[in-house]
Amino acid sequence: RCFHFCKLPGRVMGIRLLRFTSVVIIVLLLVAGALTALLPTIKDDKLPNSRREPKTQSQSALDSFTLIMQTYNRTDLLLKLLNHYQAIPHLHKIIVVWNNIGEKTPEEMWNSLGPHPVPVVFKVQTVNRMRNRLQNFPDLETKAVLMMDDDTLVSAHDLAFAFSVWQQFPEHIVGFVPRKHISTPSGVYSYGSFELQNPGFGNGDQYSMVLIGAAFFHRGYLEDFQQQPEAVYALIDETQNCDDIAMNFLVAKHTGKPSGVFVKPVDIRNLEKDTNSGYSGMWHRAEHLLQRSYCVNKLVNIYDGMPLKYSNIMISQFGFPNYANHKNKM
Amino acid sequence: RCFHFCKLPGRVMGIRLLRFTSVVIIVLLLVAGALTALLPTIKDDKLPNSRREPKTQSQSALDSFTLIMQTYNRTDLLLKLLNHYQAIPHLHKIIVVWNNIGEKTPEEMWNSLGPHPVPVVFKVQTVNRMRNRLQNFPDLETKAVLMMDDDTLVSAHDLAFAFSVWQQFPEHIVGFVPRKHISTPSGVYSYGSFELQNPGFGNGDQYSMVLIGAAFFHRGYLEDFQQQPEAVYALIDETQNCDDIAMNFLVAKHTGKPSGVFVKPVDIRNLEKDTNSGYSGMWHRAEHLLQRSYCVNKLVNIYDGMPLKYSNIMISQFGFPNYANHKNKM
Repeated sequence: RCFHFCKLPGRVMGIRLLRFTSVVIIVLLLVAGALTALLPTIKDDKLPNSRREPKTQSQSALDSFTLIMQTYNRTDLLLKLLNHYQAIPHLHKIIVVWNNIGEKTPEEMWNSLGPHPVPVVFKVQTVNRMRNRLQNFPDLETKAVLMMDDDTLVSAHDLAFAFSVWQQFPEHIVGFVPRKHISTPSGVYSYGSFELQNPGFGNGDQYSMVLIGAAFFHRGYLEDFQQQPEAVYALIDETQNCDDIAMNFLVAKHTGKPSGVFVKPVDIRNLEKDTNSGYSGMWHRAEHLLQRSYCVNKLVNIYDGMPLKYSNIMISQFGFPNYANHKNKM
Repeated sequence: RCFHFCKLPGRVMGIRLLRFTSVVIIVLLLVAGALTALLPTIKDDKLPNSRREPKTQSQSALDSFTLIMQTYNRTDLLLKLLNHYQAIPHLHKIIVVWNNIGEKTPEEMWNSLGPHPVPVVFKVQTVNRMRNRLQNFPDLETKAVLMMDDDTLVSAHDLAFAFSVWQQFPEHIVGFVPRKHISTPSGVYSYGSFELQNPGFGNGDQYSMVLIGAAFFHRGYLEDFQQQPEAVYALIDETQNCDDIAMNFLVAKHTGKPSGVFVKPVDIRNLEKDTNSGYSGMWHRAEHLLQRSYCVNKLVNIYDGMPLKYSNIMISQFGFPNYANHKNKM
C-alpha cells in the first residue's frame, strides 16, 4: 500500500495535467481570437441586418477603379449620376471634386441616404478651376481612374467593358469620346471631330485624342500632370478649357504612341438638358472649339513639337448586346 | 638652253600627268559602275515599256506581307481570287499551295497573262494534306503571313486595315473569323460559334480562336509549327481538319494570352457556290463540327492542358466606310 508517497505523483500529475490543459485551452482561444481579427470587417456604413455579403474593405488595386467626377452648378445631375455610378462593378471609391466654392457639399444628405456600395469623398475646392480634377488625390488607392463629366451617363455594361480594355492597355486613355487635330499647310493645327477632313492616312478617319470626361487612365498620369511646365496650367486656367487636350499631349509624349484607345459606347447619354440649374456645359460657349484649336497650337509651342499620334482602332464588345454585332455572310 | 635634260622632266611629267588622269578616269568609271549596281533593278516580269514605276524588289519585310493560299479542286475560284488579291496594297508575294496532286499548275497561263503586280509561286505538293499550307516555305521573305482559304474574298480595305492591326499585335492571329470552345461540367470541351452558350464571363460573348483561313499571323509560327508533337500532325491528317485549331493552341501556348484578335470585316464573301467544280468545302461534311470538338479535346490531351484564352475585343476601322460607324448622341 502506498500512502503519502503514492498520492503525491498523482496529485502533482493531476495538477500538471490541469495546468497543461488550461494552457492549451488558453492558447487555442488566443489563436481563435487572432484568426477572427483577420477576417474581413463589416463596413461601418452597412446596417448589421444587411442581407448582402460584406465587401472586403479594399478590392485589389488592379481589379478596381476610382471614379473622379468634378462638379459645378449641377448638383441635381451629380446626385442622379452618383446613384447610377455608385453601383458600377469594380468601382472602389468615388471622389467628387466640388467646384461650388463656398457652397456646402451634399455629404450630409448622402450619408443620411446610406448605406452606399462604395465610399464617396467630397473634395472641397477653394477656387473654381477646370484642372482641379487633375490633382493627385491622396484618396486614390487604385491604379485606374475613371474620369466622368458631371453630365455624362455611361451604361454599366460600357464601363465594365471599357475597364477590361483599359486593363489590356493600361498606358493609354481608354474612353468613349474620340477627337482629332489636323495640320494645315501653314503649319497651324486645328482641333475637331469627324467634321474635319480625314488626316489622309488611307481611308476612313483617324483620332488623335480621347477626351478624359468619359475615360479610364492610369493614376500615374495625375502624378505626371503635377510636373508639367507652368505655362500648361496657365493655359488651362486662362481658357477654363483644354485640360483634356493637355492630358492627351502628356500621355502621347510619355508613350510615343497614340494617347488614346477609343471604345465605342453602346449607351452614352448627355444629361445636361435635364438639369434644373439652367447651367449648360462649357462646351456651349461660342468660342469653345476655337479655344481648343488655340490650345493645341499653344501646347505644341510649350512642348516644342506635336506629340499626338493618330489611330483608327475602334473597339467594341464582341457579341454584345447580341451576336448580330459581328454576324456576317460567312 | 636646255636640251636633253630639260625635256626629260617635261616628258616625265607629261607621262605622269597622263597616267594620273587615266587612273582618275578609271576610278571614276568604277565608282559609277558600282553606284549603278546598287540601284534597284527593274523586275524581270515587267515589260520595258511599262508605264508604272518599277516596284523595289523587296518591300521592307515589316511593311508588307505574303499571301499563302492553299487550293484543291477549285482552280476557277483560285484564279478569280488571285486577280483580286494580287493587287492588295502591301502585298509582297503570293504562295499558292497546289494540292491538286498530279495536275499541272496554271503557271503557264498565269505568266502568259502578265505582267502581274507581285510574283506568284506555285508550290506543287505530293500528297493532298490540309497541313501542307503550314510548311515553313523558304519563299517567305516577309514577317507577316496572310493566309486565305481558296473560296474566301475579303475586300482590300479590310485587308489593309487588318494588316495595320496585325502590325500593332504581331504576336497574335489577327483575322476575320472568330470561334470559341466551351467547357462543360464533365470536363469535355465543345467547339462552336455564337450558337454555343457564352462562356459566362460577364455579358456578351467571347471567342478563343481566330481561324487562319482569313487571317494575318507572324511567320515565326510556321517555324514553330514544325516543332510540334507528332500526334498533332497525325490528328490533322486523320481528320483533314483542325490545322487552324492546332495553330491557335500553338499561339496561345506561346503567348499565354488569347491567340487571336478579331477584326470585324466590312466585306467578306464566301465564293464556294460560284465554283464550276461542284466541289464544296470541307466544312460541309456532316461530321465537320463534331470533328472540331474532337480535335479540341485531343489537343488538350496532347498539350496536357487547355491553353486557349477568351477575348471579347472586336476591332473595327474608325470612320470607315463613314463616320456613322461611331456617331452617338454626344
